Amino acid sequence: MNIAIVGGTGKEGAGLGGRWAVAGHSIIIGSRDEERAKTKATELRERAQKLAIIGHTNLDAARLGEVVVLALPAIGLDATLRPLEEACRGKVVISTVVPLTFGGPRLFTPPPAGSSAEEAQALLPGAKVVAAFHHIAAHELSETDHPIECDLLTCGGDADAKAVVADLGKSMGLRAIDVGALSNAGLLEGITAVLATINRRYKLKNSGIKITGL
Amino acid sequence: MNIAIVGGTGKEGAGLGGRWAVAGHSIIIGSRDEERAKTKATELRERAQKLAIIGHTNLDAARLGEVVVLALPAIGLDATLRPLEEACRGKVVISTVVPLTFGGPRLFTPPPAGSSAEEAQALLPGAKVVAAFHHIAAHELSETDHPIECDLLTCGGDADAKAVVADLGKSMGLRAIDVGALSNAGLLEGITAVLATINRRYKLKNSGIKITGL
Repeated sequence: MNIAIVGGTGKEGAGLGGRWAVAGHSIIIGSRDEERAKTKATELRERAQKLAIIGHTNLDAARLGEVVVLALPAIGLDATLRPLEEACRGKVVISTVVPLTFGGPRLFTPPPAGSSAEEAQALLPGAKVVAAFHHIAAHELSETDHPIECDLLTCGGDADAKAVVADLGKSMGLRAIDVGALSNAGLLEGITAVLATINRRYKLKNSGIKITGL
Repeated sequence: MNIAIVGGTGKEGAGLGGRWAVAGHSIIIGSRDEERAKTKATELRERAQKLAIIGHTNLDAARLGEVVVLALPAIGLDATLRPLEEACRGKVVISTVVPLTFGGPRLFTPPPAGSSAEEAQALLPGAKVVAAFHHIAAHELSETDHPIECDLLTCGGDADAKAVVADLGKSMGLRAIDVGALSNAGLLEGITAVLATINRRYKLKNSGIKITGL
């Protein structure tokens, strides 16, 4: 499957792209800066043989992707996403965006929409937004020599879109768990704030979450 | 240790009380209705021999407890807690309160304070409030014949109070993980909304959470 990763030069996006490329998907790394996208794609290709990873602008990446992954900062989402509305229409869009503010009174600072995923859905009304992958540590993703010890929690309004995301999770060895409607996205984004706090407090890079009893 | 459980006739409070009693603590079940508290205490005592569990009004329970556990609904917290302010002064107060609204547009509906634990801290300014135990399924707690497969996430402003809560967790076999300041309490309360969604969707009663990589 062709997977576009908007903002894919960052750690989380590049980590997801690397894992999916190893699993046999074709990856289009998107960036505001096309050169940076091409450089990151080259870097990821060099890690392993025959990986299908290319770099483009965010807009071209979104056009080329059958699935579009948002691996962007929460701030400035509107400026980045508005130009992609047409390119994302009808597609599964995976939001990995997490609204964290370090050093403020509160670590988790969701936008007025309630979550970054809901903000993305409002900006991309024709897309099927699924919130997922936020809480899979970039550090875990980038070390492709071992399995990721973590579950994949997803939420969104479209069951078929969630099934696609679940398959993408399975292709990197993750068990997908359906956490209901997109109105629950703030809860999943908040879990990343929990893990970021644990990482800092226990000097880790890769804490994750598993659901027990399932 | 003497542990008061305000609102202890509910499933979560009674489950915690039963586990702690088995671990050797003395439990005071509190209720608005003293008779209900005494009935629940008798019921819990009958499950096992020699368990130290008594019933009282919420106020008397809070006075008797060295640690006070809030096992209350999120709605009406102010009316229940204001009369307990003096009784809780200087004590470790554990908030298990979760602001969920079923059937509305959003499952997780925190109060203006950001979380029920922060609301409790504002109502009990002399207490050391720690948010914990929300996400340990009542169903898991009540079945004392097997260990609880779940981690205990805690947050709060007082490190010593969190250490007390961690010990209380250990006494029922839980690994305690420190998730920072009380401003993170909304995140922990939100995890219960995630688990409630998973329970409903997968027809479970006892989903839980484990932190990996730690």
